[in-house]
Formats: sequence, structure tokens, C-alpha cells
Amino acid sequence: MGVIGYGYWGPNLVRNLAELDNAIVAMVCDQSEERCKAVANRYPSVTTTTNANELIESANIDAVVIATPVRSHFDLSLQALKSGKHVLVEKPITQSADQAQILIEEADTRNLILMTDHTFLYTGAVRKIRDLIDSGELGDIYYYDSTRINLGLFQHDVDVIWDLAIHDLSILNFLLKQRPLAVSATGAAHISGQVENVAYLTIYLEGGAIAHVNVNWMSPIKIRQTLIGGSKRMVVYDDLEPSEKIRVYDKGVTLTEDPESVHQMLVGYRTGDMWAPQISTREALQVEVEHFIECINTSGQPISDGRSGLEVVKIAEAATQSMRRRGEPVEIG
Amino acid sequence: MGVIGYGYWGPNLVRNLAELDNAIVAMVCDQSEERCKAVANRYPSVTTTTNANELIESANIDAVVIATPVRSHFDLSLQALKSGKHVLVEKPITQSADQAQILIEEADTRNLILMTDHTFLYTGAVRKIRDLIDSGELGDIYYYDSTRINLGLFQHDVDVIWDLAIHDLSILNFLLKQRPLAVSATGAAHISGQVENVAYLTIYLEGGAIAHVNVNWMSPIKIRQTLIGGSKRMVVYDDLEPSEKIRVYDKGVTLTEDPESVHQMLVGYRTGDMWAPQISTREALQVEVEHFIECINTSGQPISDGRSGLEVVKIAEAATQSMRRRGEPVEIG
Amino acid sequence: MGVIGYGYWGPNLVRNLAELDNAIVAMVCDQSEERCKAVANRYPSVTTTTNANELIESANIDAVVIATPVRSHFDLSLQALKSGKHVLVEKPITQSADQAQILIEEADTRNLILMTDHTFLYTGAVRKIRDLIDSGELGDIYYYDSTRINLGLFQHDVDVIWDLAIHDLSILNFLLKQRPLAVSATGAAHISGQVENVAYLTIYLEGGAIAHVNVNWMSPIKIRQTLIGGSKRMVVYDDLEPSEKIRVYDKGVTLTEDPESVHQMLVGYRTGDMWAPQISTREALQVEVEHFIECINTSGQPISDGRSGLEVVKIAEAATQSMRRRGEPVEIG
Amino acid sequence: MGVIGYGYWGPNLVRNLAELDNAIVAMVCDQSEERCKAVANRYPSVTTTTNANELIESANIDAVVIATPVRSHFDLSLQALKSGKHVLVEKPITQSADQAQILIEEADTRNLILMTDHTFLYTGAVRKIRDLIDSGELGDIYYYDSTRINLGLFQHDVDVIWDLAIHDLSILNFLLKQRPLAVSATGAAHISGQVENVAYLTIYLEGGAIAHVNVNWMSPIKIRQTLIGGSKRMVVYDDLEPSEKIRVYDKGVTLTEDPESVHQMLVGYRTGDMWAPQISTREALQVEVEHFIECINTSGQPISDGRSGLEVVKIAEAATQSMRRRGEPVEIG
Repeated sequence: MGVIGYGYWGPNLVRNLAELDNAIVAMVCDQSEERCKAVANRYPSVTTTTNANELIESANIDAVVIATPVRSHFDLSLQALKSGKHVLVEKPITQSADQAQILIEEADTRNLILMTDHTFLYTGAVRKIRDLIDSGELGDIYYYDSTRINLGLFQHDVDVIWDLAIHDLSILNFLLKQRPLAVSATGAAHISGQVENVAYLTIYLEGGAIAHVNVNWMSPIKIRQTLIGGSKRMVVYDDLEPSEKIRVYDKGVTLTEDPESVHQMLVGYRTGDMWAPQISTREALQVEVEHFIECINTSGQPISDGRSGLEVVKIAEAATQSMRRRGEPVEIG
Repeated sequence: MGVIGYGYWGPNLVRNLAELDNAIVAMVCDQSEERCKAVANRYPSVTTTTNANELIESANIDAVVIATPVRSHFDLSLQALKSGKHVLVEKPITQSADQAQILIEEADTRNLILMTDHTFLYTGAVRKIRDLIDSGELGDIYYYDSTRINLGLFQHDVDVIWDLAIHDLSILNFLLKQRPLAVSATGAAHISGQVENVAYLTIYLEGGAIAHVNVNWMSPIKIRQTLIGGSKRMVVYDDLEPSEKIRVYDKGVTLTEDPESVHQMLVGYRTGDMWAPQISTREALQVEVEHFIECINTSGQPISDGRSGLEVVKIAEAATQSMRRRGEPVEIG
Repeated sequence: MGVIGYGYWGPNLVRNLAELDNAIVAMVCDQSEERCKAVANRYPSVTTTTNANELIESANIDAVVIATPVRSHFDLSLQALKSGKHVLVEKPITQSADQAQILIEEADTRNLILMTDHTFLYTGAVRKIRDLIDSGELGDIYYYDSTRINLGLFQHDVDVIWDLAIHDLSILNFLLKQRPLAVSATGAAHISGQVENVAYLTIYLEGGAIAHVNVNWMSPIKIRQTLIGGSKRMVVYDDLEPSEKIRVYDKGVTLTEDPESVHQMLVGYRTGDMWAPQISTREALQVEVEHFIECINTSGQPISDGRSGLEVVKIAEAATQSMRRRGEPVEIG
Repeated sequence: MGVIGYGYWGPNLVRNLAELDNAIVAMVCDQSEERCKAVANRYPSVTTTTNANELIESANIDAVVIATPVRSHFDLSLQALKSGKHVLVEKPITQSADQAQILIEEADTRNLILMTDHTFLYTGAVRKIRDLIDSGELGDIYYYDSTRINLGLFQHDVDVIWDLAIHDLSILNFLLKQRPLAVSATGAAHISGQVENVAYLTIYLEGGAIAHVNVNWMSPIKIRQTLIGGSKRMVVYDDLEPSEKIRVYDKGVTLTEDPESVHQMLVGYRTGDMWAPQISTREALQVEVEHFIECINTSGQPISDGRSGLEVVKIAEAATQSMRRRGEPVEIG
């Protein structure tokens, strides 16, 4: 394995890759000499380089993991695929749907694994919610409503949609079968000369469900809370809870047919127990890199494959367009 | 004083009016005989009636408090004003801006007090936030972001915007000097044949600030949380906290001028103490009815006068239009 | 019904008694003329008096509810029983076990109901916990650990044990079948000339279980949290939670028999789901006064009868002795 | 540096020592070959051994860090001191005050640093509380009340007092100038054949202050909360809060001299703002090992020196005695 980029996320990837029994981190590339030194100190057996080409073209390397700024995802991934390497690339997969399409085709042609690092799909919490939805326990899904805010790093090549909202778009795609139809997005850039630091996305889904994502780099408090409303039960997923990340509420509304209540109220309330299922606490990134290796070894299809990366980018592109037009709805291609 | 409507909110109004030293509740009207009986049991000295005309036309009554369904606000208020009574009417003041305009003119012509029951403007919490903003402690206001959700009663004549979001629109108008320019709203009605039960409003304000309101009648948990982001400090207002409803965070971002960091990061972080100022715990409705009486006695201008009711209705009207068009921005008249 | 004492708790009692269909509040007594006036304003049909004898001896009165300072509980209750009235008396029932014993005998002799106002026994939360224990869902009970602290009123005739801890002692007696054997209590009086404002009680129960109560009138925050540890499951009861007051944790320890682990660890961990059962939200005091009337009408035995009041006072007496001796254990008589 | 013990805490020590610029981890000892291998994989330059003597007698080693079970602390520390090594030993320093005394004397005689790993004394939170106390902002300290509970590992050579309560005893000694006089402790062992898994300590301090520590290995939820009540202000320290670990409440009681209130209430309430000061988020163990090296280099006196280790052990010994006698108070030697 070779890893390009040892900035914020790269060290986590290297650490998790290093713990695998059936993979070896052979080389790490970063433009900074200092970071290369940090790698060498911590992992003496790993070769380091400041030249990505050297890593991509190395005959020792079967798979390339890319944890660089977004603007370089496409070029590096394409180059790696063309060198016959499997690719695991940070989210978002690319800066545009067109780029993602090209990567998918390149990987397909060469029978290589192309995987996006949609980490949340490998958490016990999101997996458990998917089980609850798939088993019908929640009933029909009415809404997905996520708040993902904190005092965050201003990115330079991507705004808050392409940074934080990508997580929700990937979770949404993973959880719900309903296809996203259109998006209305609003946002604002409060620091002159900077990208949007706050944004709100509403995604219209097939069948009348609605998804909403609130992302903000300038919140004084950190919130990672998602509500999923179903016709039978509702889920609150709080990723900051040390345990009990998921709470299932036996609450909802029921239609009353009582003719006497016609002029009063047609909707009744149902309130019952709350239940917090135990969920796996394995580190998501560990599960994810194991899955990457397994897909390579078995020619399997990653859960977060290139196509899932593409779907997410399509919504983000539509959201960006909508945000420029102050919320005007944009169909998702 | 006469009170029309003794359903959900009316009992709170009567209780608070009954505690005033300089006002007497002479009559209460409700269409239900049973509720009239409840009034009589609890307040033996109060006359009851099922006929609103009787109350409005009573010579014993100087001021009418209207706590009926929204569709009757305009007619009852207009009739009361025409009978020479001061009026305090539940929020929203009317179903349309045109109606609100007519009430304002009628009250002006007759030198009567017309006040809307925007209760939150009379809470210690909202007052304290206004002080913080007016004194410049928060700096320039960047955003107002409110979540007001719970498993709530489905209303019959109003959707979730005209029910829950009205609170935020009135708070927003009270707190910020920036004029609202346009609104993009989205929402969904998940129960067939019912009004929208979830809605998201983005309001564009003069000077680049943005406000967002998330309202939902189908949430398994109750949230009443508002974030207000300023250039100097930020506020988190949680109305469900028994004490410490307001927290002021000395956190924010600062621009760095360091030329070396041009390609790295132009925005730095600032993090300091948090501070929860003590706030008045007087019941807002008590403060409000005292203010109503005082305005009557001094011919004063209520904080939540007809014009503030009108401003709120204008935004709600624009939001409704925008929601019908799936988020297309609508200018606020 | 007659109510003596219209200070802090009396108004709650009168309000709940007034809502009963099968009882009438005929008279209220308070030493303060002003409070008598407050009663008269709010309940015009109720006679008021500043003379407790008048109430106790009134032929109109079948039952007396006593909500006066603790030092007067015994005399007033005894006098009322001797006048042939049923008695519901605020907690603690008396200042000593001897006094409680006399009241019990007097009530028994005269076939009158004697009930203590141990309000928590009438909450949905405590009832649900008792169901969980009685059904065996928690297994053997290992410990009961309660924290009941806030910035509270300094009482004049009772210390923090006789004020706050009484609640826990009554809950403990209600929930557990194991008899309390001995108590070790510690505490401190931080305000010169005042009673103890902080106290810690450990109660040794039959069979090895242990109960602990932490009470404090000088805490900056309010806590009402009780942990109940069982061999199968554990409960966290947080009375300040608006909903989900009770959480049942499928967590615990299990003994491992693995001989290989003898020198390592003999105790393993078990962790599973958490579950918050729905509980009744009826006001406890309403349930309680209904129960009082029902016991009167059916000659039933109140859940919080004189004997339960006596058991609680016995532990409080032993705790007071122990506290004077800095924690030396005192057998419970 | 040499580190003995690479079980639960050892890896944290090695990681923090490895990041020091002015120290080198030369050798790590653990009885388990497997753990030695883990060290070698992660730190290829470190020598490993399963023989503690080899490490202690190595000429390459100036200081020994001991992270072994408590029963071996005394022997290993004494041996290391006799070999002329500085010693940093896990808490508690020894199993008895006599043992601690011997270590202190040995270190003094040889001019070696003897330090106990009372980690909390190196946290930003505890340091900030000490500043608040030392500056007089809290006024006179009335009480220290700590709850430190979770579903924890059953230790084999120490009970819950010698495991969890040690933390509070070290914090207490660090924060308060008042000398501990006596302790009353209670507890229970719920698993047959095991040590006490729940314990409650009350420590009487000079001048009337009181400290209480609630420790429990069988709680379904994790709590790390300490209240410190002062005459002027009060502190709530919640170590599980990601930020805002410390909250300072401007709340308290005041004596009223009003003679009219003699029979009513002599104690009034004061309630004001709450304030959460920013605190250092540096990892405590990093601060601690730097302090250890600095003390070695400058012959300084560690904050958590052998004497502070001894003071803590004295209280724990007295608590153990008291617990055996069901709470009977035991003077602290």
C-alpha cells in the first residue's frame, strides 16, 4: 500500500493500515519534508517521498490511498488507476460528477477497485440504522434531518457543503432507497474572500420524503445530530454520545377516523418506549480499510465504491448551483 | 378585560390577567359550554358566554384578548377595534399581511392599542440576547439559526410555519436591525390531506447575514435551540434549559494577515471562556399582559404592536409562497 | 376535607384536592391572615381560619390534611385523630419514632386512616422501578445510590436528612424487600448556628445490599439521580428528565469460570441495549390524594401508611445519631 | 528511561515519553512476550525484556517508570532507587504508608526523584480549580463532593478505594490546604470472593470542611463529577465534558441579619452568572512526564512527590479500616 498525503487525515489512515495483518504500508508521500520525517520516526520500515509520481509508479505498490486536498483527487486517482493500482480516495471523490465518471470507467476497464472514503458508512451506528430501516422497524421514512456544525477549519478548495455535507449525502444514499430528485440549498460566506461557511440543503426524495442538512464551520458548539422520522418509529442519532449513539423512539402520529373529531383533530399521537440498541464500537476506519483489502482480494464491490462517490458529488453539484441562486431548486442529474 | 377563547392558550392568559392589580377579567367567551363551566368553577366572579359578540359589545369591557384559532383573528380583532376596544391577539396576528394592515389602520384611526402575543419577546432570555447585540458584545451578527421541533399538535387552519416558525420570525425581527430581504423555504406534508408538518426557512438579511429556522411537528424529541453567530462572540440559547438558557461563547474566527500562510490558511480560530448570564425568570406572559395594560394606560406603543405582527406575517407569506415552489427565493414585500 | 398549612406545599395539596370529584375542601387553616386571603380569593367556597382547633373540631370535616412545619405534625395529627378525623400528614410523619408509634396506635384504635405524604411513591417512575424489581428483571438488588442536591431552603426545625433524605428513605422502603439493618451517616453544618446542610447516609440492608443517599442544600446545581444496581440489569432514574426518567441498562458483570483466567480476571463484563420504558405522567399528588380518599371510603390500607412513615423515621433517627458520632454505625431499631 | 509494565497504562506512558525531546525510552519490560513484541513493532529502537532486574540494573537507564500491579510497586521502586535510578511510579505509590515512608527516605538519602503518577494534578481542569481556590475566588471551601463511577475492571490486588478513590484523594490534597483529620468509609463487595466494588468515603477536614467520594465499579453509566462548594462561589467539574469541564457558579447562601426574619429564615440565597473558564487541553500525561524530566534535571521537587503519594495512602489506609468497621471514624495518622 502507498499513502499520498500525511496531513490531517493521512495519519489516521496510515495507523489503521499499519494494523492490518494482510497488508503492508510500503510508502508514504507528502510534499512536506517535515511530515515525511514524522512518518519515518513513527514507522521506521516505511519509505517516504515528496514525489507522488514515485509512489504511484512504484512496482512495490498494489494500492494507493489518497488523502490530499480535494483539487488533486481526480488527477492522482486517475494516474494511480492508469498505473494499475487500486485506489481508496478521500471524500469527496472528485470536484465534479464528470471527473468521478471518468474514474469509474477507468477502474471498470482495468478491473481495479475504486473506493471513496465515506467513513460513516463503516460505523456501527449507521449500519444499525440501516438495519432498522431495512427490517421495516421504522416504517416508511418521512424525513432525514441532520445538523453537523462546529468551529471548523476553513478549507481552501472546498466550501462547507463539499466538506461537511458530503458526510450526510453519503449516509443518506446508503440508508435510503428513495432516489434524490432535486435540491434547494442556501448558504452564506461571512468572511470576505472566503468560501461559504454555513449552508442548508433540502433534498427532495422520491415518494415525498425530504432530507435536510445543516452544516456550519462557525458554530460555537459541536453538534452531530441526525433525526430520522418514520411512520412507525423515529431515530435520533447523536454521534457525540460516547455510548447510546442511537435512540429509537416508539413515537409517531396516527390518523383517527373518528367522524366526531373531523372538525377537531384528525391526527393522534402515539408515544411509547425508547430503546438504545447496542452498537459496534470498532473504529470505522479500521472496518473500512479491511473492507478495501477484502474487495481487492476478492474483486468485490466496495460499499462506498466509485458510483456511491459519484452520486454524492451529483447532489453536491446541484446544491452548489442552487445555493448560487439563493435556494432555487435544481434537479439532480 | 374580556378573553375570547379558552382552549390551549386561553387559560394561561386568564390566569395571568387575573393576577394583575390594575385590571379585572370581567368576561370570558368560549364556544364550548364545558369550558365556560371550567372558567366559572375556577374564577367564580367572571361572567362567561358562548357568544363572542356579547363580549365584544359589552360596555363593561375596555380591552379584548383573543386566543382563538388563527382563521378568526382578523374578524374578531376588527370587530373589537370597531367597538372601541383595545386588542391583544394571539400570534400570528392574521392570516395575511393585507388583513394585518387593515387592523393597524383601524387601531391607528381610533387611537386604540393593537398588540400581538409574541410571547418570546417578553422572556428574560430574548431580552438579554437583545442587550448583548445592542451593546455590541457579539459584534456584527452573521447568522441566526433556530431549531424548534417536537411531537406537536397538527393544527387545522395553519401549517408548521404559521404555528412554530412565527415565534422565530418575531424574535428575529426583535433582535436584529437588518431588514429581511428574501426567503427560501422548503417543507413537506407527510400525512395525506394535512398541512406541512416540517419546514425549513432561510431568510436573507440586509448586509449578508442569514437566518435559518427548522420547524417540525413530527420530531421524537423536543428541541428549542437557537444559535446566534457574531463576529466577536456567539450565543447559544436553549429554551429548555431550566437555568442557563443563554450561553455566550468567546469563540470565533480571525483573519490572519501573515503572507506566509496565504497558501495555507487565512482564517484562524479564537476560543475563550463561556459565560451564562443570569436572566430574569419572570413568566413572560405576566410581563406581557402588564405591558399591554401599561400601553393602554399611557397610550404607549407595544413592543409587539400590530406592525411587528405585520412584519412577521409578511415573511410567513413569502415563505409559504417559496415552499410551494420548492425553495425558489421570494422577495419580502 | 380540611387542610392545615398553606405555605410551600399546602397550595399544591389544596389544588389537587379541589380537583377531586368525590371530596370537597371545606376549610383551610393558616396562621397568616394574608395566606387565608389568598385561599379565599382563589377558592371562594372554602372557609378559612387561623385557628387549627376550629378546623380539627369542625363537624363538617371528615379528614384533615396537615402541611405544617415538622415540629407540629405530631400534635396536630394526634388531635385530629382524637377528633375522629382521617389524617394525611406531610413527610416526615413525626419528629421521632415514638411519636409515630403513638399516632399509629391511635389510628388503629379508632379505625381511622393515617397516611404520610411520601409523594414519590405515587410517581409513575417509582412505580415502574418497583415493577421492574418485583418482576425479577433487575435480578438481585446490589445497591441503591441517590443524589438529591440543590441550592435549597434552609429549614428551621429539620436538617437536610429530615428534609431531603426522607424522600429516599421512603422510596427505598417501598422498592426493596430487604430490611435496613444499620446506618452510617456523616454530614456538616457550614453556616454557623444552622442545622446540617449536607449529609451522606449509608444504609446496610439484609443480605449484603447497600444504599447510599447524598443530600445537600448548598449545591450550585440541582441533581435528582438514583442508580439501582442489580445482578441482571441496572436502572438510572433521573427525576429531572422531562421524559425518559427511567433508563434500564442491560449491563452488568458476570463471573467467569475459566480456570486459565484465575490469576487474571474472574469477573467479566456484559453490555447490551438500554431501554427507557414509558411511564405515567399523571401528577403524583393527584394520584396520592385519590388514594387517600379511596382508602377512607374502602377502609383500605394506604401505601404510605403510618407504618411506612414510622419505618422512615426510624432510619432518620439512627442516621442522626450516627452523624453526631461522625459515621459510627447505628443499628436500626 | 526504562518502563516496567506494558499493560493498560504502560502504553500511554511509553507514547508520551517517546515524544519528549530531552529523554529517550531505552528499554521496556513486561512479563508477557507478546506485549514485548508489541513494543518492538511500534518502537523498533527500544530494547525489550521480560526481566525487570535487567532493566533496573541497566547502566543505560537513569530513570525507571513503573506501571505494574500495585502489589509490586514497593519492591520495584525500592530496587530501582537502590540502583540509583529516579522513579516515577503508578498510583497508589505503595500498598501501605510504611512502605511509602521507606521509599521517601531511600530517595532522600540518595538525592533521587521519587514521583507518583497522580495524573489529575497535571490536568488543566484541576490546575484551574486550584487557581480559583488560591486566589480566593471561591471563598472558604465548605465541601468537596466527587462521584467517580462506571462499569469498571475488577482489580485483583486492590479494591475500588485503592483504584478509583486514590484519584480524588490526590486531587483533594492538591487543592485544599486544610489537613484531613479523620475518615468514615462504607462499602460493599457484591461479587462473592471479590474485593469491595462500591465505596463511600467521608473525610473530615480541619476547620469544618468535609469531603465525600463515591466510587463504584458497577455503575451502568460513567460519571466523573466533582462539586466544590465555597462561601463565595461554587465549582462543578465534569471531567467527561469535552470542553467546559469547569463551571463556576456565582451562587451561594448569605446570612441575613434582619431581626424580623429571625423566626422565618436566617439564610438567604444568592444566584448570579455562571462562567466556564477556558482551560488547557494539553494531555495531562505529557505535562507530567515533562515535569518528571525537569525535576530530574533541576533536582526539583515534583508536585506529586513521594510525600504526596504517602498522604494519599494514609487516607486510603484509614478508609479501609473504617470500611471494615462499617463507617466507624478512623483518625488519619
